[in-house]
Amino acid sequence: MSAAVKYPEEFAGFAVLDTKDWNKPKYITFKPKKLDDHDIDIEIECCGLCGSDIMTAMGGEGWGEIKLPQIVGHEIIGKVVHVGPKVTHHKVGDRVGLGAQAFSCLSCRRCEDDNEQYCNKSVTTYDGTYADGYVSQGGYASHVRAHEHFCFPIPKEIKSSEAASLCCAGLTVFSPLKRYIPTDLPKGETPKVAILGLGGLGHLAVQISAALGADTYVFSRTDSKKEHALKLGAKGFVATGTEKDWAEKYYDQFDLVLNCAISLSGVNLGGFLSILKVQGRFVSVGLPSAEEKYDVAPITFFSNGSSLCSSNLGSRKEMLELLDLCVKHDIRPWVEEVPISEEGCNKALTKAWEGDVRYRFVFTEFDKAFGTGKK
Amino acid sequence: MSAAVKYPEEFAGFAVLDTKDWNKPKYITFKPKKLDDHDIDIEIECCGLCGSDIMTAMGGEGWGEIKLPQIVGHEIIGKVVHVGPKVTHHKVGDRVGLGAQAFSCLSCRRCEDDNEQYCNKSVTTYDGTYADGYVSQGGYASHVRAHEHFCFPIPKEIKSSEAASLCCAGLTVFSPLKRYIPTDLPKGETPKVAILGLGGLGHLAVQISAALGADTYVFSRTDSKKEHALKLGAKGFVATGTEKDWAEKYYDQFDLVLNCAISLSGVNLGGFLSILKVQGRFVSVGLPSAEEKYDVAPITFFSNGSSLCSSNLGSRKEMLELLDLCVKHDIRPWVEEVPISEEGCNKALTKAWEGDVRYRFVFTEFDKAFGTGKK
Repeated sequence: MSAAVKYPEEFAGFAVLDTKDWNKPKYITFKPKKLDDHDIDIEIECCGLCGSDIMTAMGGEGWGEIKLPQIVGHEIIGKVVHVGPKVTHHKVGDRVGLGAQAFSCLSCRRCEDDNEQYCNKSVTTYDGTYADGYVSQGGYASHVRAHEHFCFPIPKEIKSSEAASLCCAGLTVFSPLKRYIPTDLPKGETPKVAILGLGGLGHLAVQISAALGADTYVFSRTDSKKEHALKLGAKGFVATGTEKDWAEKYYDQFDLVLNCAISLSGVNLGGFLSILKVQGRFVSVGLPSAEEKYDVAPITFFSNGSSLCSSNLGSRKEMLELLDLCVKHDIRPWVEEVPISEEGCNKALTKAWEGDVRYRFVFTEFDKAFGTGKK
Repeated sequence: MSAAVKYPEEFAGFAVLDTKDWNKPKYITFKPKKLDDHDIDIEIECCGLCGSDIMTAMGGEGWGEIKLPQIVGHEIIGKVVHVGPKVTHHKVGDRVGLGAQAFSCLSCRRCEDDNEQYCNKSVTTYDGTYADGYVSQGGYASHVRAHEHFCFPIPKEIKSSEAASLCCAGLTVFSPLKRYIPTDLPKGETPKVAILGLGGLGHLAVQISAALGADTYVFSRTDSKKEHALKLGAKGFVATGTEKDWAEKYYDQFDLVLNCAISLSGVNLGGFLSILKVQGRFVSVGLPSAEEKYDVAPITFFSNGSSLCSSNLGSRKEMLELLDLCVKHDIRPWVEEVPISEEGCNKALTKAWEGDVRYRFVFTEFDKAFGTGKK
């Protein structure tokens, strides 16, 4: 690609230069943020492709305008190559992961309550703005610098290209499953979870939900993914496009519907609310374009007092729990590896947007692209 | 008005004959439903005017088409004048209340879990359809026949015209307050509740929320009701129309927002979600017209993982708890009494629709209108 990146003076990465060309990132070099006391530098080994990357790269057609050039990617695995003076969690040489959040204040009530993902000083791993105005850059890059709190030690049992997707997709589904699968059901009753959409998020949600002890059903439009769903641990599979009476059949059965579909257009929200038990929850983790709205009136919830919510990422505490759970229950993302390059980014972004992936792309071979990995 | 009603062969009431004339109910007589084993007959003493009465009477302009003629009214207090052969809760002569629900199966899981308001065999007190096709008729009437489970003994400390509004408005706000005011906060922390809208529902919600131990704030567009709010027990009052920075000022403070406003148009839903703590709830109990939708996208909830829900009525168990609480804390609706008649119905329905009531109309003097109260 080019000469080896001149770390630590500069980092290199594949950046969106124009949101019209969202799927054609180009190689650039850039200055890292200033090294704060708790920051660590990660030399990146691999990085997953998350739906967020696409929605961000699309700018106004996705989640809204972004700062350019922008390097996306927030399912990062790599090696610690430098630590700030007050870092305690990590040391040079450790293998760590970094998800979609790179900073929070760690002193407000939300941070103290293990809800740092909701801190209002939170900075996202890319396209976030630090207090000094620096715009964060993500993981389709040679290196990333982030606060140690948001970097996680990766257990040796999990290989890097699989660990990557756990850092955002895994945590994003784990947090609501952990928080909302009821643990106080009458003796003998098993919680029941519906996963809506089997993709990057959904295929992890099925495994995690089952590992957490819930009877897990996958709801998808067609039955094309039925075999995969059952292999991932689903107890049941419902093809909503062909099983026309699914809402009646599953009425009042579920404690939780986890919506892992990116788009809600065409989703029968009333039907999914009706399969919930009293006070059950419909929780969205997939985030569609900014214009997409819920088609919902207050009366929609009246039949069972159910509620509609979203969940955003998860806490460090939850990420560490998830990694333990993955080791214990052999939970792994199903990934397709793609060597990172301008061509690789273009191919993977385009195919992911078309839904042509089973179930997560992970960019690899960063050493070849950036001339890293020497030490 | 007319000769005394020929009970028990027929009941009489003021019925909507045409939804265009929703505020001009006319005197009619009608056949009661067949007396089931657990039914009781109530000779009505008074009946509150609920917003539901208007939304129902309006037909397609409100909640949708209705069966005509239709007698609305579901905040009923009266005297038991007959009991079915298997009735155990009540005896002839008792003073009882009946709210918005008149029947449920009492054998499904929801009924067994004290969630009979969400039973899918539920029949509403008016414009509901029983298994035999009979359409229920409400409380702007001489008598009402309903399942004993949905009739509540009224403590002697509460006078009838005040007890009336507790049966629907009171229960409707009590149930979500009881279920969702957190009881597991760290020692020394007081739960904090925002009541949106000070009307028939809101003025009871303030009193009940305060009695349940929450710091209760009223949010209203103007400060015209500030004095009332404080007198009702509010700790704070926020005029959202003039305090432009209210959402920033109250950021991350509330465990629960109880939306008691009928219409959501013009409500800054994003602002109300932002004043919630992490995983707080925005619960609607006011129910606007069928066409009105929430203006909400999944990302709306992302800043705090909050959720949006509705609550529908409450259970018998909760109604009995509420009556106890009202006696103990001296909670009373603020009512304006209106003698029932065609003119009285017209005047009160019209004024209530215009919001010109502090805070609940209760129709009285049923004995004069229907020639009852003889025994």
